[in-house]
Amino acid sequence: MTVYANSPDGPVKWERFLAQRTQRMQSSAIRELLKITQQPDVISFAGGLPAPELFPVREIEEACNYLLRQEAKIALQYSTTEGYRPLREYLADSMSKYGIHHGPDNILITTGSQQALDLIGKIFIDPGTYILTGRPTYLGAIQAWRAYEAEFITVPLDDDGMQTDLIEEAIRSHTPRFIYILPNFHNPAGTTVTEERRHRLVEIARKYDLIIIEDDPYGALRYDGEDIIPIATLAPERTLYLGTFSKTLAPGLRIGWVVAPAEIITRLVQAKQGADLHSSTFDQMIANDIAQRGILKMHVRKIRQTYHARRDTMLDALAEFWPEGSTWTQPQGGLFLWARVPATINTLDLFYKAVEQKVAYVPGVHFFPHADGGHNAMRLNFSNAQPEFIVEGIRRLGLVMKQELAAH
Amino acid sequence: MTVYANSPDGPVKWERFLAQRTQRMQSSAIRELLKITQQPDVISFAGGLPAPELFPVREIEEACNYLLRQEAKIALQYSTTEGYRPLREYLADSMSKYGIHHGPDNILITTGSQQALDLIGKIFIDPGTYILTGRPTYLGAIQAWRAYEAEFITVPLDDDGMQTDLIEEAIRSHTPRFIYILPNFHNPAGTTVTEERRHRLVEIARKYDLIIIEDDPYGALRYDGEDIIPIATLAPERTLYLGTFSKTLAPGLRIGWVVAPAEIITRLVQAKQGADLHSSTFDQMIANDIAQRGILKMHVRKIRQTYHARRDTMLDALAEFWPEGSTWTQPQGGLFLWARVPATINTLDLFYKAVEQKVAYVPGVHFFPHADGGHNAMRLNFSNAQPEFIVEGIRRLGLVMKQELAAH
Repeated sequence: MTVYANSPDGPVKWERFLAQRTQRMQSSAIRELLKITQQPDVISFAGGLPAPELFPVREIEEACNYLLRQEAKIALQYSTTEGYRPLREYLADSMSKYGIHHGPDNILITTGSQQALDLIGKIFIDPGTYILTGRPTYLGAIQAWRAYEAEFITVPLDDDGMQTDLIEEAIRSHTPRFIYILPNFHNPAGTTVTEERRHRLVEIARKYDLIIIEDDPYGALRYDGEDIIPIATLAPERTLYLGTFSKTLAPGLRIGWVVAPAEIITRLVQAKQGADLHSSTFDQMIANDIAQRGILKMHVRKIRQTYHARRDTMLDALAEFWPEGSTWTQPQGGLFLWARVPATINTLDLFYKAVEQKVAYVPGVHFFPHADGGHNAMRLNFSNAQPEFIVEGIRRLGLVMKQELAAH
Repeated sequence: MTVYANSPDGPVKWERFLAQRTQRMQSSAIRELLKITQQPDVISFAGGLPAPELFPVREIEEACNYLLRQEAKIALQYSTTEGYRPLREYLADSMSKYGIHHGPDNILITTGSQQALDLIGKIFIDPGTYILTGRPTYLGAIQAWRAYEAEFITVPLDDDGMQTDLIEEAIRSHTPRFIYILPNFHNPAGTTVTEERRHRLVEIARKYDLIIIEDDPYGALRYDGEDIIPIATLAPERTLYLGTFSKTLAPGLRIGWVVAPAEIITRLVQAKQGADLHSSTFDQMIANDIAQRGILKMHVRKIRQTYHARRDTMLDALAEFWPEGSTWTQPQGGLFLWARVPATINTLDLFYKAVEQKVAYVPGVHFFPHADGGHNAMRLNFSNAQPEFIVEGIRRLGLVMKQELAAH
C-alpha cells in the first residue's frame, strides 16, 4: 500500500465511512479462485468462459470497419440509456420466435447480464427483502443482491430444476418479493425446469402475487431435446426476462438485456442512468451488426456443435475415470454440469489437492446462499477446454478423489 | 403498454414491489431534455457532447484491426474486475506527471465516470448520509447518490469555484461523509478552484476527517493558464480521484477510472463485481492502444485547440448578442460555461420559448440539489456545435431574452 507522506494525521480509518451494506459485500469466491486457476498449465473447469478459439473474430473486424467508416459519429458518441434502438428491435423480433411478445420499448440494454441483476436489486430490494431462489443458485446473483442487503429463501433443485412443489412451504414464514430462476441449463446445476414446473411456478407466483426473474443466459445453447416455453411467455405481466450476448457472441463486449413490462423498464432506465448512463455504444452496434447480418445465428450453430461434443467428452470421461459413488447431471445444454462426489470427500478441501495436480473446479458450497449444501459437489465447465484437456482433467480429478478415498 | 392476455389477475401493481430508494429516483432532467433537443434543426447547447467530427476514427479503426488480429482471444473474453492491467499502468504513469503518485493497483477501471460515482455511492452512502457539494453541482452525481438515499449539504460557488471558507459553517448541523468537488472547469459552472482553496479544502477535510471525491473529467482540456495541483496530490490518503476517456477520446466507449487508497479500491472492486463484473475488455484495450501509441496525446492537443476557439466564439457572441444585465463565467477549459440572465427571466420558462426558436440549453435549477438557485441561470456547452452555429444559437437566445424583457 502507498505510504501517505503528505498526511499529518496518518492513514484514514476507512471502516467508519463504509455504508452498512458494504460490510456484507464479499469478493466473488469464483473470481478469487480464477486467479489461482489462471496459471497456463492448469486445466480449469472453474470458469464459465466461452471457447475463445471460436470467437467470430473476422466478422467482428468487418463490423468494426463498417461502423467506423459509416457510423463513427454515432458509434463513438454518448447514446440513450435504453440502448441502441435497432438492437432492441432485433431482440424484440428474435425473442418473439420464442413466444416472448414484447416490443423494443420493453427492452433495456445492460452492461452484461450482471448489470441487469444489479439494477433489479436496486429497484426492488430494501434491506431485509426476501428473495426466493434455488439451491444451488448463480453466485453472481447472490453477490449482486447481498449488496442491497437481501435475505434468501431457498428451495432445492432436483434433475428437473427447482422443486416448485416446495415453494409454498418455503414461503410460509417469509414472503419473498421475487422468485429468481435459471430455467435452462442452470448455472451451476446444469438442470432444466420442465414445462409442467414452469406452469406450476406461474400459478404460485400469481396466487401470492410475486415477481419472477427469469435468467436465461444459455437458452440458445441447447444440445438435446426441444426448447421449452419461457416463463416470460406464460406470465408476461410479472416476469423480468434476462438475456445476454456473453455466451453466444463474446463476453468481453458486456452486452445483455432485460425484457419487462414498460413500467419496470422505466424504473430500470432511471436506475441505469445513475449507474453508467448507458452501455458502450460501440459494443452495442457491433453486436447489432453481427446479429442483423445473420452471423450470430450461424455462429450459435457452430458453438452449439462444439460445446455439445465437449459435453459428451466430459460425460464419457466422468464415467470412465471417476470412482464409484460419484454422480453428475446430464445437461441438455449450456456450459456446466454439477458433479456429486462420494460423501467422505469435501470438495472445498479437495480443491487445493486438485490444483496441485493442475486441475481446477468450483467447490459446490459457493453456490449455496446459506452455505448449507454442496460440500460434496462441484461445478464443472465443459465449454472452455479442448477435448483432450477435458479428458485429462477429469482423469486427474478422478485420481485425486481415489487417493482421497484410499486415505480415509 | 403491452396487454397481458395471459394474466387472469390483470396487471401487477408494481408500486408495492419497489424498494424505498426507488421512490426517490428520477430520470435525469438533462437526458429528458436531450430528447427534446435532439431534433436535427435545433442548435443545442444542452448536452455535454464532444465534437463528433473530431473523433480519431482512423486510429480507432487501426486499434480494432490490430487487437482483433493479435489479441482477439483476450479482447473478446471475460477479464478482471480491476481492469486491463496495461491500461492501469499507463494511467498510473500518466497521472504521476500531474503529481498523483499511485500505482496500477490503486486504479479501478469503470464503465464511464458515472459508474465510479455509483460505486462510491454504493460503498459509502447509507440512507440519510450527508454529502457536501457545491451549488450548482454535477447532475449525474446527484442522480447517482439520490438512489442511495443521500442528503446534500451545499456550499455556493463563485468565480474561483467552491467557496471553501463557507464549508465549516455549512457542516455545523450535519457532518457529511464526503466532500464532492469538480476542481477544474466545473460542470455546470465552468469555474476552477484556486490552489489556495485546494489547500484550504484539504485542511478542513483533515480537521474533520472527511473523504474528498475529486471528479476531474475535463482536467486535460485547459485552454488558458497553468495546471493546478490536484487535490489527490495534496491529500492522497483521503481523496478518490475520478478520470475518464469520455471527453478526451470517445464517450461511446464508456471507459473511466478511479484512483484511491488500496483499501478503498478493494471495496470498489467488490461493488463492481456485483454491478457489471468488468468494463468492456475490447473498449479498454482500444483506449489503451490509442493511449500507448501516443495518439491520445496528439488528439487532446487537437481538440484543445478546437474547443478553445469555440469557447472564444461563444464568449464573443455572448458579448455581442445578449442583453445588458447578463453575465457569464470565463472558463479556462472544459466544455461548459454558466450564464446568468437578467433577474426577471426564469430560465425554466424561457427554455420552451428557446426551443421554439430552435435553440436549447439546460436550465440552471437542475444543478441545485435543493432546487434553491439557478432560476436565472443556464448551462451552455461550447464543444459540440460548429462556430457558425454557436454564433447563431447565442444570437437567437439573446433575441428570445430581449423579447421576454420587452414583455415585462
